[in-house]
Amino acid sequence: MNFLSDTTAPAHPALLDALVETNEGFAPSYGADAVSAGVKQRLQDIFETELEVVFTVSGTASNALALSVLCPPDAMVLCHDEAHIHRDERGAPEFFTKGGKLLPLAGDHARISPDALADALKQWPSDFVHATPPAVLSLSQLNESGCAYTLDELDNLIGQAKARDLKIHMDGARFSNALVTLGCTPAEMTWKAGVDILSLGATKNGALASEAVILFPSVKDHLPRLQAHQKRAGLMLPKMRFVSAQMGAWLEDGLWLELARSANDAARRLSEGLAALDGAALVHPTQGNEVFIRLEEALATRLRDAGAGFYSWPDGSARFVTSWCTTDAEIGALLEAAG
Amino acid sequence: MNFLSDTTAPAHPALLDALVETNEGFAPSYGADAVSAGVKQRLQDIFETELEVVFTVSGTASNALALSVLCPPDAMVLCHDEAHIHRDERGAPEFFTKGGKLLPLAGDHARISPDALADALKQWPSDFVHATPPAVLSLSQLNESGCAYTLDELDNLIGQAKARDLKIHMDGARFSNALVTLGCTPAEMTWKAGVDILSLGATKNGALASEAVILFPSVKDHLPRLQAHQKRAGLMLPKMRFVSAQMGAWLEDGLWLELARSANDAARRLSEGLAALDGAALVHPTQGNEVFIRLEEALATRLRDAGAGFYSWPDGSARFVTSWCTTDAEIGALLEAAG
Amino acid sequence: MNFLSDTTAPAHPALLDALVETNEGFAPSYGADAVSAGVKQRLQDIFETELEVVFTVSGTASNALALSVLCPPDAMVLCHDEAHIHRDERGAPEFFTKGGKLLPLAGDHARISPDALADALKQWPSDFVHATPPAVLSLSQLNESGCAYTLDELDNLIGQAKARDLKIHMDGARFSNALVTLGCTPAEMTWKAGVDILSLGATKNGALASEAVILFPSVKDHLPRLQAHQKRAGLMLPKMRFVSAQMGAWLEDGLWLELARSANDAARRLSEGLAALDGAALVHPTQGNEVFIRLEEALATRLRDAGAGFYSWPDGSARFVTSWCTTDAEIGALLEAAG
Amino acid sequence: MNFLSDTTAPAHPALLDALVETNEGFAPSYGADAVSAGVKQRLQDIFETELEVVFTVSGTASNALALSVLCPPDAMVLCHDEAHIHRDERGAPEFFTKGGKLLPLAGDHARISPDALADALKQWPSDFVHATPPAVLSLSQLNESGCAYTLDELDNLIGQAKARDLKIHMDGARFSNALVTLGCTPAEMTWKAGVDILSLGATKNGALASEAVILFPSVKDHLPRLQAHQKRAGLMLPKMRFVSAQMGAWLEDGLWLELARSANDAARRLSEGLAALDGAALVHPTQGNEVFIRLEEALATRLRDAGAGFYSWPDGSARFVTSWCTTDAEIGALLEAAG
Repeated sequence: MNFLSDTTAPAHPALLDALVETNEGFAPSYGADAVSAGVKQRLQDIFETELEVVFTVSGTASNALALSVLCPPDAMVLCHDEAHIHRDERGAPEFFTKGGKLLPLAGDHARISPDALADALKQWPSDFVHATPPAVLSLSQLNESGCAYTLDELDNLIGQAKARDLKIHMDGARFSNALVTLGCTPAEMTWKAGVDILSLGATKNGALASEAVILFPSVKDHLPRLQAHQKRAGLMLPKMRFVSAQMGAWLEDGLWLELARSANDAARRLSEGLAALDGAALVHPTQGNEVFIRLEEALATRLRDAGAGFYSWPDGSARFVTSWCTTDAEIGALLEAAG
Repeated sequence: MNFLSDTTAPAHPALLDALVETNEGFAPSYGADAVSAGVKQRLQDIFETELEVVFTVSGTASNALALSVLCPPDAMVLCHDEAHIHRDERGAPEFFTKGGKLLPLAGDHARISPDALADALKQWPSDFVHATPPAVLSLSQLNESGCAYTLDELDNLIGQAKARDLKIHMDGARFSNALVTLGCTPAEMTWKAGVDILSLGATKNGALASEAVILFPSVKDHLPRLQAHQKRAGLMLPKMRFVSAQMGAWLEDGLWLELARSANDAARRLSEGLAALDGAALVHPTQGNEVFIRLEEALATRLRDAGAGFYSWPDGSARFVTSWCTTDAEIGALLEAAG
Repeated sequence: MNFLSDTTAPAHPALLDALVETNEGFAPSYGADAVSAGVKQRLQDIFETELEVVFTVSGTASNALALSVLCPPDAMVLCHDEAHIHRDERGAPEFFTKGGKLLPLAGDHARISPDALADALKQWPSDFVHATPPAVLSLSQLNESGCAYTLDELDNLIGQAKARDLKIHMDGARFSNALVTLGCTPAEMTWKAGVDILSLGATKNGALASEAVILFPSVKDHLPRLQAHQKRAGLMLPKMRFVSAQMGAWLEDGLWLELARSANDAARRLSEGLAALDGAALVHPTQGNEVFIRLEEALATRLRDAGAGFYSWPDGSARFVTSWCTTDAEIGALLEAAG
Repeated sequence: MNFLSDTTAPAHPALLDALVETNEGFAPSYGADAVSAGVKQRLQDIFETELEVVFTVSGTASNALALSVLCPPDAMVLCHDEAHIHRDERGAPEFFTKGGKLLPLAGDHARISPDALADALKQWPSDFVHATPPAVLSLSQLNESGCAYTLDELDNLIGQAKARDLKIHMDGARFSNALVTLGCTPAEMTWKAGVDILSLGATKNGALASEAVILFPSVKDHLPRLQAHQKRAGLMLPKMRFVSAQMGAWLEDGLWLELARSANDAARRLSEGLAALDGAALVHPTQGNEVFIRLEEALATRLRDAGAGFYSWPDGSARFVTSWCTTDAEIGALLEAAG
């Protein structure tokens, strides 16, 4: 009953198989191999557009690289106060942008409030030499409270930002989980909504270490800079085929969505089951594979005693994360221990 | 007959097996897992000392992280003019040190000349506010011309540097190849010689992507800063066990030395075979798994026509790199095509 | 009737006289001159302690240099959301700290609320590798709303910060104005209250361009790093005597306090006069040389028509700044135009 | 007999007079004043072209700001191995470019050798993701050995650089001294020769602290970025009129050239006088206001005993610097002591 994090889970066997399969003979280094080219083509099919892609090995790397080409050193990224890029990356965006600023914005359930965005844009001008100008709006989908922006919410926020010529970054460490929840197409949740650059994560959903920074057509010409930053950051792996091969297998035949759906389903059952109990109250809606719930002390203790692993969150709630390999039996056992 | 680079080679099957074996159940994230702890212990045994280690996924990452804890932003790294950190990392050291300087030094066969080091140390004071002070001496072992410093040469250079309180970094992207050549112990080639920090590379010798930054006792207290930099650079992988597991298998039962010896032997045969021909002249001694040789145009063409892959080097020579999987048959075929 | 900013005012004649007087013969460069040494001694007398000092030419330079020695690149400065370092320095702190983060805190009248500080310290741990640790608390005295922290307020905030081993920076661009308001000694408002480093500004109060970064005994050993950063930033002026000489004259015979008192008195008269009118309401208490007041449109227009220069502030108020050279006649004329 | 440095000399009285004259009434801050606008116009007249200008307070600041707009963080500046930007600015270029690299080139008398430049351009490609691309060629005029490039030499070097799309920076800390030596127009020595950006220094030739970064038409559109960097570096002085006023007076009626001619004449007399002695040998031609000469020990001692101030240079020679206020009497006294 390990609900600590989707990063503690093992990798899906299909991705390991892909590594073995890829390990045949020699291949060009640094991403110039045929495997990587094939995965790029697959991404173009899935996202229904031309795009450029760079493969990385952590979500922090993807986010920081993405921001490094959109935010000049003397400019600013607007994000939620709870955003992973602000709270959990030890300043990677500041490092990769070489001194950029992150402006934390308020909003319930880790969703940037449209008013907060409007206020920030009003307070921070774009062309006053003394003030750091906003350059990027970063949105997490799924976000840090396990919630997904609706397409309408995305449209509102992105519309405001575009009116000020900001670029849009989407932190998609749990992109597949949000996609399954919204039930829209990958294109609708990204470039059709105005997203310029996407951190697409597979690691939390079945990969060993495979992430991608995807440049949609609006910013495709940043590819050479992105590659230079990737190299400069030690993130251009010599044998890149082993990173892209994971993503290739993950995207094949809808495996990524199947795994996300499985994790989301488990989270919903867990969420509904726990929320029905006395002494438990959901803190955020469960819209992906994370459940944030306030538990009475006795209940929390009972769960821990039964061997359930979960984190106490800074706001006093408990966080349960399901993954592609969470089983019905585990959910059942947890709810039984709780009941 | 692919002699382009050891990074174009596949991974050794034992390392893939280790990935499969490691993929059992849940494990703590970010390097706090049991696999990583086990590999640290193995490194301590091999290097005969307590040490700290951080696992990474590229040699550039290792070098840059290592330098980031030794070289302040307003200080300087002394290295050979041909050093990988100077020539081939798109300024990763400057990025990770946040503005540090690399001072390129002269010397035959990519070995820093003792006189060049002495001259640089004389020209660049340590305590003059206007001048960038030297903080680190970086040595590549095996170096960029495929040569290894002898223990006496290391002693001379490191002695000069230590007399000025510099720290010593060793770029060991091909450490195992140099070790086999010298026939000394890992300890003798590192901390016993005064090396403070080592970039230990497995990727060029059989891994998919596995490297380590090793802090010897003299700089062990830098670990928290090193981990902060690792996180901040997007290099602290969520599922780190898959990186350390590769190194664990590589180090097991002397596999790393066996593979290096095989590659070195292949290089020596190739070197001797080619050098014996008319129209060929070695540019550097062959002391590892790289052969730099000047070939007459006709000879080079003959080799290429026979399907041999190798790079034309900027100095006009041809570079042939062997790897753990270079076969006797390949060497034979090459020499036959040449002869 | 120019109330736009104290930086639009001319310099006090005594400081120009000092330049002429200093311009005799040769003197060592870069701050090693006798004039600078004399001013350091004068500062030690005034602050009643040993200290180290570096002279600069702008408040932004002072603040950024100060923070550069206290905040590592992967750490964080806590400041008010309205702080000059956050809002008005184009990211100079992020630049000089090479990627540090500024965390904006709430509080009325640009004073950090003790609760906001407590909350931030709770949310941001000091030793979690994923989170940017707080390293510095920065307080503006006089602050950006023209208010001064009382000694008790300083004690509360600094006490909280010191309990977490943060260092304390005071942005004293209008230090003399606050000092006159509090009526305490310079020592009481700084190192005796726990301040480690002070940006002391003379430019807004009579200098051409003269500021100082003062290291109190708790951080005196940072001087070499501070000087290295000063040099590296192009802020170590060759003929530094002309910067320190201004500050020497400013500090002589209490001129700095006399000028500050004059400006504060003018602001108080202006504040009281305007606040007494229909259609005017003070937004912040007037505790220095700045008046923030909400004016009805008709009143604001009347003042502008009469030739009064003042800024419309982002919060909808009007800001009037007095300076050392604001005359009774100007205040009278303004109030007459308003009345 | 102070020949230590032209930065130890006092300011010319006309520049102090200008400060007093400028100190009348209120003026817009941060360089938006009429004095600064007037000096910009004067520079346009003198350089016979439209240009943009930013005023600074040190040569290091000017150079670093100039390079910050021309050299991306992952690119490179080519300069002479003796260049001030490489040797004497504590890494300011690396700081302002946020991690750029400086590549030191060889050449006699601190003049970049055309062959060394050609070789570097050949070795360092512009579009290879692993290698740091050259972006800027920086030339010092007058250079660090007191020598001036001829217009033909400039043409050769700049031609090579332009063929690879590099931008050209000229470090003109002693621009006026070189200009007098060459006897050409300011335009001929700069933009007509292909220079894109000029650090124009007055401080070594009569100012208290006044320098300018001049953008010629080819890079005029960089002004907003330059100003952002200036602000961010703490170099946008609130009362900028006091910096520009110095330069205005310096440029008025040819004062700058008169002072430079005077200093150069003094240096030539000193050079010829010393070089004629037994036990003295010029190390570099004297083409400005600096004399580098090897002196026998006894001669050097005799001069020091007579009260002459000069520096022992790292190459074993003695450096004598004359300034605008060096008198015939001083030169005479020195030569008498030597003879």
